[in-house]
Amino acid sequence: MNSTRDIDNLIELMARLPGLGPRSARRAVLHLIRKRALLLTPLADSLRLVAETARECLNCGNVGTSDVCDICSSEKRATGELCVVEDVADLWAMERSGMFKGRYHVLGGTLSALDGVGPEDLRIPRLRDRVVSENITEVILALNATVDGQTTAHYIADQLEGSVRLTSLAQGVPIGGELDYLDDGTISAALKARKEI
Amino acid sequence: MNSTRDIDNLIELMARLPGLGPRSARRAVLHLIRKRALLLTPLADSLRLVAETARECLNCGNVGTSDVCDICSSEKRATGELCVVEDVADLWAMERSGMFKGRYHVLGGTLSALDGVGPEDLRIPRLRDRVVSENITEVILALNATVDGQTTAHYIADQLEGSVRLTSLAQGVPIGGELDYLDDGTISAALKARKEI
Repeated sequence: MNSTRDIDNLIELMARLPGLGPRSARRAVLHLIRKRALLLTPLADSLRLVAETARECLNCGNVGTSDVCDICSSEKRATGELCVVEDVADLWAMERSGMFKGRYHVLGGTLSALDGVGPEDLRIPRLRDRVVSENITEVILALNATVDGQTTAHYIADQLEGSVRLTSLAQGVPIGGELDYLDDGTISAALKARKEI
Repeated sequence: MNSTRDIDNLIELMARLPGLGPRSARRAVLHLIRKRALLLTPLADSLRLVAETARECLNCGNVGTSDVCDICSSEKRATGELCVVEDVADLWAMERSGMFKGRYHVLGGTLSALDGVGPEDLRIPRLRDRVVSENITEVILALNATVDGQTTAHYIADQLEGSVRLTSLAQGVPIGGELDYLDDGTISAALKARKEI
């Protein structure tokens, strides 16, 4: 299709990224070639570096460049609170909020009978170990408000019951949310959890 | 924000690609780290290769990996027809249609009084030289149907008048287009250029 195999090959690889298709991959590659010194070479170097160094934290499952991630190795974050999330993207989202000062535990998915994902496929045994070894006093289940997420939350709550305080994120109207655009489930949950002003 | 500087740096670079923002760049980087062997390493290698080898064809301005691109060096394409396009993306779009068998000339932009782009900033002098040296019989002006594109087409037509046959792409209803969704200008152009069935 285009003039050379190397460039076609790059376009094909770029098109496999989430959020890019064949058309936007072509646009991105032309942009990269035009900005060779500013963008193409730094991006190639950066990808090479991450390909060599990125690994999962052996403790929590976060992505980092050392065997134990910055959060797990920071003494400041040994608050006794452990936030359980589904995947690394959720951990990053929690970190952006800047509110949580404890450590995380990334499950690496949710239980799913349909997809054949059982407790042994997730990082649940490791979670039980950590609750004991890190003197955890509170486990915050920050799982997605989907059927699979809530099933997983119930399973973990069952496993840890009695050994630790268990909490979950509040459900309700999002900040800036308009009632008119919210689904019935969210409105019911917000009404049930209403609080005194 | 995230756990390590290298990964943050990669996200920042990815977010500068057209079509990606900070959020989709984070998603893409997590996807890359998960598919290290299948996607991350091949993409890093491919970018490195293109960064080292990609260059502009000295003859037509197409992007390739040699001094003269495949189209310019192919004897099969010396048909005497030369298609003038604005940039490489337009050349690739023409090639995808598979209809044009001649060679191309990439201007590298359009004349623009507002942006201070004059004829000397584009590949117009080189176009005049090629018309003579490559025994061109027809120059097809495949410029965008915008004000700047049409101004540039008129300027080139002025420059080449008398020395060669000059044509432009037909204007009209796009294939699959619905009249109801077309702008007035396109409908007027299609009506003016109506043809016998």
